[in-house]
Amino acid sequence: MNQPFPSTLLEEAVNEFSKLPGIGKKTALRLVLHLLKQPAEQVARFGNSVIRLKNEVCYCRICHNISDQERCSICSDSSRNSRQICVVENIREVMAVENTGQYNGVYHVLGGLISPMDGVGPSNLEIESLVDRITREGADEVIMALPATMEGDTTAFYVYRKLAPVNIPVTTIARGIAVGDELEYADEITLGRSILNRITYKG
Amino acid sequence: MNQPFPSTLLEEAVNEFSKLPGIGKKTALRLVLHLLKQPAEQVARFGNSVIRLKNEVCYCRICHNISDQERCSICSDSSRNSRQICVVENIREVMAVENTGQYNGVYHVLGGLISPMDGVGPSNLEIESLVDRITREGADEVIMALPATMEGDTTAFYVYRKLAPVNIPVTTIARGIAVGDELEYADEITLGRSILNRITYKG
Repeated sequence: MNQPFPSTLLEEAVNEFSKLPGIGKKTALRLVLHLLKQPAEQVARFGNSVIRLKNEVCYCRICHNISDQERCSICSDSSRNSRQICVVENIREVMAVENTGQYNGVYHVLGGLISPMDGVGPSNLEIESLVDRITREGADEVIMALPATMEGDTTAFYVYRKLAPVNIPVTTIARGIAVGDELEYADEITLGRSILNRITYKG
Repeated sequence: MNQPFPSTLLEEAVNEFSKLPGIGKKTALRLVLHLLKQPAEQVARFGNSVIRLKNEVCYCRICHNISDQERCSICSDSSRNSRQICVVENIREVMAVENTGQYNGVYHVLGGLISPMDGVGPSNLEIESLVDRITREGADEVIMALPATMEGDTTAFYVYRKLAPVNIPVTTIARGIAVGDELEYADEITLGRSILNRITYKG
């Protein structure tokens, strides 16, 4: 795509789309031309949906999850166990854990992971507010549901140390062989951890 | 993604994005969350770029290419040969031919291909206006640059028959083995055509 676009309006829209992650110039052009074929109301609805989201969205002041109100639907749900707090990186992980249907506690969204390489330190994350929240309200268990990466482990360990004075059980989600995976294709670290953290059959 | 979204604004934006071709719910969520992290001006620029494009874009009244004015930059370029008209399906093909740097004539954008299965007949396309244009202004050559599909061939043949009374040379782009392709992997029809339409060495 070295040639100039036939229209600067088209060029602008394609440039904006190609700033999105994983969208190159060709895909951007395809998406923009698709939108151009839609009725004007549909295009307006598309464009305004992101602008409205950015301008009007709230973050829950308890768990920092995305929300329409000051308090998200999970934190305001009285049927959920507010003394069990699942610590996650981002709102996508809240949705992922919710999709399992296996969890009835509440969340705390850190908004990222400690990553000195990217200039993200503990003060950029909602760690202080987590410690405050637990110190103030107490909790029965804090579950770390962070990715099994260096950043995830670093963040989990940092949070664990910060919570040590409050003296509350801190757990982490199990690392092991994914359901449906063959043992021979698992990496050594995962397989090693899954042996160390083996589970006793109950029956 | 069976669980409700934590925010209806988020849900709306994700729904709008997942209407785009090739974008599923998961990708839509990823794109929307990426936008949400950008500054408000950037999100406004993104959203408004498509709305402005839809509302303000023009189509050249000569060749029906997308344009910012009533007459596109190619049709108004006096250094181009306006008596050589390349007939293409859509504005993407205009950009593709322009990118080759091999063509100095003008274009005529049909806006689609004849496809009875999709309910697209000749009257839905800019075929009448092409015949009018050539009858009125004349031309030295009409080059068909349509896809090598049934719809492309049908459309090319229809346009060719419509142009027969005007008595102007009508050509089509060469079908053959793509540069870099092995003969053994080419399909029989392509290979057959490339033999029938073989080219004499000049030197």
